Amino acid sequence: MERTVRVDLGERSYSIRIAPGLLESVGEAVGELKNVSSAVVITDSTVSQLYGQQVVNSLSGAGLNASVIDFPAGECNKTAKTYCDLMDSLFAVEPAIDRDSVIVALGGGVPGDVAGFVAATALRGLRFIQCPTTLLACVDSSVGGKTGIDHATGKNLIGAFHQPCEVIVDVETLRTLPREELCNGLAECVKHGVIRDAGLLDFIESNADAIFACDADVMAELIARNVAIKADVVARDERESGLRAHLNFGHTIGHAIEALTGFGEVTHGQGVALGMMAENHIAVARGLLEPADAERIESLLKRLSLPVRLDGLDAGKIQAIMQHDKKTRAGQIRMVLPTKIAAVDIFNDITSEEIQNAVNSY
Amino acid sequence: MERTVRVDLGERSYSIRIAPGLLESVGEAVGELKNVSSAVVITDSTVSQLYGQQVVNSLSGAGLNASVIDFPAGECNKTAKTYCDLMDSLFAVEPAIDRDSVIVALGGGVPGDVAGFVAATALRGLRFIQCPTTLLACVDSSVGGKTGIDHATGKNLIGAFHQPCEVIVDVETLRTLPREELCNGLAECVKHGVIRDAGLLDFIESNADAIFACDADVMAELIARNVAIKADVVARDERESGLRAHLNFGHTIGHAIEALTGFGEVTHGQGVALGMMAENHIAVARGLLEPADAERIESLLKRLSLPVRLDGLDAGKIQAIMQHDKKTRAGQIRMVLPTKIAAVDIFNDITSEEIQNAVNSY
Repeated sequence: MERTVRVDLGERSYSIRIAPGLLESVGEAVGELKNVSSAVVITDSTVSQLYGQQVVNSLSGAGLNASVIDFPAGECNKTAKTYCDLMDSLFAVEPAIDRDSVIVALGGGVPGDVAGFVAATALRGLRFIQCPTTLLACVDSSVGGKTGIDHATGKNLIGAFHQPCEVIVDVETLRTLPREELCNGLAECVKHGVIRDAGLLDFIESNADAIFACDADVMAELIARNVAIKADVVARDERESGLRAHLNFGHTIGHAIEALTGFGEVTHGQGVALGMMAENHIAVARGLLEPADAERIESLLKRLSLPVRLDGLDAGKIQAIMQHDKKTRAGQIRMVLPTKIAAVDIFNDITSEEIQNAVNSY
Repeated sequence: MERTVRVDLGERSYSIRIAPGLLESVGEAVGELKNVSSAVVITDSTVSQLYGQQVVNSLSGAGLNASVIDFPAGECNKTAKTYCDLMDSLFAVEPAIDRDSVIVALGGGVPGDVAGFVAATALRGLRFIQCPTTLLACVDSSVGGKTGIDHATGKNLIGAFHQPCEVIVDVETLRTLPREELCNGLAECVKHGVIRDAGLLDFIESNADAIFACDADVMAELIARNVAIKADVVARDERESGLRAHLNFGHTIGHAIEALTGFGEVTHGQGVALGMMAENHIAVARGLLEPADAERIESLLKRLSLPVRLDGLDAGKIQAIMQHDKKTRAGQIRMVLPTKIAAVDIFNDITSEEIQNAVNSY
């Protein structure tokens, strides 16, 4: 059964389709767009080997000129150099791309963000389709139009808002993921539950085994519930002028931990799990969140093999990195804190001491 | 007397202000925007020496944290390397920029386009103000939100649509321009006249001497008339889905000539002048344009020291480059041709033979 979630953004609205085997129908989906001249799949070296040819075949089968270009896998390659190399490859494709060409962003969060940014800026903007192949990309980065690359001074500091025309989730692709990759996505699922949906936390608690076994129907339901939350937030605040910041719960401190330990050593999911723990600590200390709710979240993170503490972090360095974060304005760190399960608020008055205490609580 | 032209784009509307001495009030203008945390002037090495400190002083005088970063002057530096270097400099600015920081794009078309693209993509989009200091930038590139960089395979192939918050034209800055730079802008002025406004051609014909002498009031009037035309076209078609293509008159063949001769050897204005000549040739051969009108345009270009022919061009190579142009769709070259003075149309059926004949007519 195919599940569909709609992202409501006026003339930029699009659907997220979720089912096993959907990679076979990427060609059909691109073919249904208007005036498509050609399609270029952009992915990383790992995903290219697994699915690159399959997607090109699907596109060719739909009568489209199709090619695939890739870059070395890994968050460490989410760089300006990769972006420039991909542009060189894209403009070398024959026949030459034009404004009616469509980019297919295939893979996890890194290929999705990088390919999306290439689509946003090649010929001042090409249409693109997201085909996420990791749980993290399915429930988070492929939806909402954030595209970009990292900079030495912080994650995702260079990029653009550019909405896809469609998101196609083939849940079969999740079967080949290592457990750690599933954990990456599950951290964002827990986050969605904490900020919006207590029932989602129940669902994850009850279905953890089926999720780790990649049961197709449970996985499709998990993804559909998560993207529905994200789609609703994005529809209300496309460019993160307010509400969308709620999605940053766990990310203010989480991103800083990822940056401090060098992107890749602590995975994004681990960073977000640690970030949620530290931010919950602040929320509990402020009397916003019941200790029992914080403990429930901690237990669930542990159940999902996500870290809840990390030794040897330097609170001062964490804070310095947070000053460079996109979420920081006028030097004042903004933080999203839960006020109970399924409710959060944005706080602009976080003190250095609170951050220090939170980081030292690990 | 300050002249103001409005660009009507809903919530992205902005004003173009034109007067002598306006660089002094850049600080005031930025200060009037909401929640500004800091300002960074991005310019090239030449303009930085001339006006960088003046603009920083104006910003500081308005109570803003202000800094200036620059890159080596020249179209040959409108590259991905420059873009990456500027991002490095931008993220090294202290205190660190945030989403409330404002970019001031100061200089000619190259700094304007590059700084605009940096603004479009730093932290997924910062507000920016255009302060054009060449006639070309005043009447063309600073208005309309096209930002970007060149790629080895063509001009402006990488970029984004990102509208400025305001355009500030200090006509005093035009006094220091070499004659060739004025000619660059005048080619676009002639283009605006041909596509929309016979009266503008009369104005240029009557005031050519005063224009070359940089008479402040004549120059301000020239710029105001030109940006009014551009603003109207942009307001009707912000993202070039139709009408905005009219502004490409002279640019289809013009860009190809610039590319073939290596960007910089033939200036943009010279390319556009040659492009208009060749495209007029096609229009006359098709019976669309009266030969007398084509001759009037040729005479005016000559009067403005713009080239009307260039020896030794390879028509085949010109055509190959046009295939890579952003304006090309599904391999079919699109061209804007005048049907009389102040009226143009878009044609999708241009043949190789017509292009060959036009290029060989030089």
